Amino acid sequence: MKRAVYAGTFDPVTLGHLDIIERSSKIFDELIVAVAENKEKFPLFSLNERIEMIEKSVKSRKVKVEGFSDLLVDFAERKNAKIIIKGLRAMSDFEYEFQQSSINRNLNKEIESFYVMTNEKFFYLSSSIVKEIASLKGNVSMFVPSIAEKKLKEKFR
Amino acid sequence: MKRAVYAGTFDPVTLGHLDIIERSSKIFDELIVAVAENKEKFPLFSLNERIEMIEKSVKSRKVKVEGFSDLLVDFAERKNAKIIIKGLRAMSDFEYEFQQSSINRNLNKEIESFYVMTNEKFFYLSSSIVKEIASLKGNVSMFVPSIAEKKLKEKFR
Amino acid sequence: MKRAVYAGTFDPVTLGHLDIIERSSKIFDELIVAVAENKEKFPLFSLNERIEMIEKSVKSRKVKVEGFSDLLVDFAERKNAKIIIKGLRAMSDFEYEFQQSSINRNLNKEIESFYVMTNEKFFYLSSSIVKEIASLKGNVSMFVPSIAEKKLKEKFR
Amino acid sequence: MKRAVYAGTFDPVTLGHLDIIERSSKIFDELIVAVAENKEKFPLFSLNERIEMIEKSVKSRKVKVEGFSDLLVDFAERKNAKIIIKGLRAMSDFEYEFQQSSINRNLNKEIESFYVMTNEKFFYLSSSIVKEIASLKGNVSMFVPSIAEKKLKEKFR
Amino acid sequence: MKRAVYAGTFDPVTLGHLDIIERSSKIFDELIVAVAENKEKFPLFSLNERIEMIEKSVKSRKVKVEGFSDLLVDFAERKNAKIIIKGLRAMSDFEYEFQQSSINRNLNKEIESFYVMTNEKFFYLSSSIVKEIASLKGNVSMFVPSIAEKKLKEKFR
Amino acid sequence: MKRAVYAGTFDPVTLGHLDIIERSSKIFDELIVAVAENKEKFPLFSLNERIEMIEKSVKSRKVKVEGFSDLLVDFAERKNAKIIIKGLRAMSDFEYEFQQSSINRNLNKEIESFYVMTNEKFFYLSSSIVKEIASLKGNVSMFVPSIAEKKLKEKFR
Repeated sequence: MKRAVYAGTFDPVTLGHLDIIERSSKIFDELIVAVAENKEKFPLFSLNERIEMIEKSVKSRKVKVEGFSDLLVDFAERKNAKIIIKGLRAMSDFEYEFQQSSINRNLNKEIESFYVMTNEKFFYLSSSIVKEIASLKGNVSMFVPSIAEKKLKEKFR
Repeated sequence: MKRAVYAGTFDPVTLGHLDIIERSSKIFDELIVAVAENKEKFPLFSLNERIEMIEKSVKSRKVKVEGFSDLLVDFAERKNAKIIIKGLRAMSDFEYEFQQSSINRNLNKEIESFYVMTNEKFFYLSSSIVKEIASLKGNVSMFVPSIAEKKLKEKFR
Repeated sequence: MKRAVYAGTFDPVTLGHLDIIERSSKIFDELIVAVAENKEKFPLFSLNERIEMIEKSVKSRKVKVEGFSDLLVDFAERKNAKIIIKGLRAMSDFEYEFQQSSINRNLNKEIESFYVMTNEKFFYLSSSIVKEIASLKGNVSMFVPSIAEKKLKEKFR
Repeated sequence: MKRAVYAGTFDPVTLGHLDIIERSSKIFDELIVAVAENKEKFPLFSLNERIEMIEKSVKSRKVKVEGFSDLLVDFAERKNAKIIIKGLRAMSDFEYEFQQSSINRNLNKEIESFYVMTNEKFFYLSSSIVKEIASLKGNVSMFVPSIAEKKLKEKFR
Repeated sequence: MKRAVYAGTFDPVTLGHLDIIERSSKIFDELIVAVAENKEKFPLFSLNERIEMIEKSVKSRKVKVEGFSDLLVDFAERKNAKIIIKGLRAMSDFEYEFQQSSINRNLNKEIESFYVMTNEKFFYLSSSIVKEIASLKGNVSMFVPSIAEKKLKEKFR
Repeated sequence: MKRAVYAGTFDPVTLGHLDIIERSSKIFDELIVAVAENKEKFPLFSLNERIEMIEKSVKSRKVKVEGFSDLLVDFAERKNAKIIIKGLRAMSDFEYEFQQSSINRNLNKEIESFYVMTNEKFFYLSSSIVKEIASLKGNVSMFVPSIAEKKLKEKFR
């Protein structure tokens, strides 16, 4: 059985993330969406809120959502997953991910990272820009699932 | 069964390509190395020579090598492979591959492209630079498998 | 009256080009689509064919299509246009256009270059990739206007 | 009448910004320099100080300076301006601006973003680097107008 | 005598930095490793700790280590060094360094900046990623000298 | 004695190249400007013409100009030079040069490559764009030394 991990902060999950979850879950037998706690970045939503928003937006039974707060390669190994999935959106992603990919291979040679190009419809989307728009009372309904839109409105009321 | 296609011109195959073939073949049940004929780019080696160099350098039974001269998504569909593997090495690769990924998804929504970051040991390597060094009588033994080194020497004698 | 020039090789015109023509023509009083002859690049279509494909795809009366074979700043000056419009699609475009913008300002300080970001729906599109797909008998109907699709089929029959 | 908005934080305005203001104001009938309040980024200068520095450095009667704290597309619409002008300086600008351009078009299809390449004399300049130099008691007279130089000295006395 | 300055924050020094120190010290008669105090970035290690880690990791007598808290060009001038050495690792480095190089030349025309490309073995390495891994209890022994590994363990115990 | 090699095709030499020659020649005891024959790229000017244009534009006695047609590291070794100087102008240069730097270090560990950032006044300049402008009868006097301007006029008469 091929189990893969798709990791991120998902603060909050966007339609771009959901597109990658859907496309990747077709390829592998099981996909764990791994939500990094990332306390030191002061996420807007708690780990539980972020997990809940993904769970409510994904229907496939092959997808599980879990939080983690250790090294991604250690999480993947604990879950017995040999594959890490990442989304690539832009040049700056690319540099950062090339670095991560080399670091991860140095930390654990058994785990392989695969990258998926974001759908061109969503490649300009990021959790940060969505939060910025929401904080200025802009409409984010075309960028995030409805549960995230609702929760963003609550935060910035 | 998960069958993936790893496509390129491989003119000639380098140690960087072989690293990606080895790493990808662990993930999927079968990996077809698809050698693009690319006549209009006037490759140095014939399609048969390029196929032969890969076959002689790869040992895994899960890997098959084949030539193709149509659209990559059409080749993948004919082979009943839903996954295209590509190596990413540098920014300029990234832009080109983002474009290819979008185009391919527009041409055939059933086929998904996955990218693997080149090992940092090989990220500066390309078939072109190897040919350039060989043409100037430089030593290419640390860049390509021995069969390719031998054939490069013959071409540039 | 504000007259602007939108220049390119348009070999052939794509839906991405047409999107920029439409958006720019709303801003200026007149938009001249300037088709570079570019003989040294051996375009697939003759200058007349390229002009014809644009004329048949654009409806606005504010848009005129003309060929040119001199320096773009000299063409703009002859046409009494103070504004050059260019589309920006990707990083490599950016570098090239930054260079062009500096060169043009050094050649003629009166003429200003403005850039428009390609719609995200089309940012992966280029005339070259369309020609490549057409040459491999792929379907290009979602990338170019119908007149260009027809002419591409004729060329690659 | 064509009214355009040139937006930024201008903390403080640099000679690069002034160059773009001057060049853009020639093209449009009116140019509103829109100073983003950006409280969450803790600007060094207050909104009023930033507005004052621009007003004292620009002579053209076609240029107006105003602060705003909502979404840029909403500000532009309120001002009845259909055009947003942005300066492009470097790759990282490009990615960010491509994202902004797509987001803005999704938020308001009536408003078009145009980009101007920074003059090569100033392309290395940014408000941040100017503040860094001033904080280390370096000379910034060749980077900012004299009013900004004076105010930087006061801040870092 | 040719004296050069190699500047950075070194929070902490990595094997990539040490590689550049070693390679640069062969070219010049004396190399001053200049450790920027950078208080406003809240470094993990004090200036003295950062200096000590470099001193204990470098053997060459041609290399001296010193802290500084003014402009780099002013430090170089005080030390009577006409050459600034910087390491280049990635695109984002490149943009930042191009900017720095232009700024420094504007501040002091007598001082020249030279860049060295990071060894491909280390190009994915940065002080930040090392700190991130150490904070998550990962093994950093292949990324930093042993003195830095020991001190990182102490910080994140 | 420190001898360095500054290599390129110089087809033709531009003011950007001359700026790097001048700045580098201050740092080293001798600078060899190494003109790559590059027959396979069909340069516009013969090797002798390219050497002559540089010799007539450089005054310093520390600078020598020579042609070469083998690997750059082999040329440097023959000349007993341990340092290769390259100019960096843009992102695409950066990627290519990072690759070259790694390749050269793999071919000869004794030779070190140093990079100089092009002066911002010239960073948009390249030999290709100068040839393009000259071929379209544009004025290139602000981009190249007078000897190159004269020879470009002859070629494109």
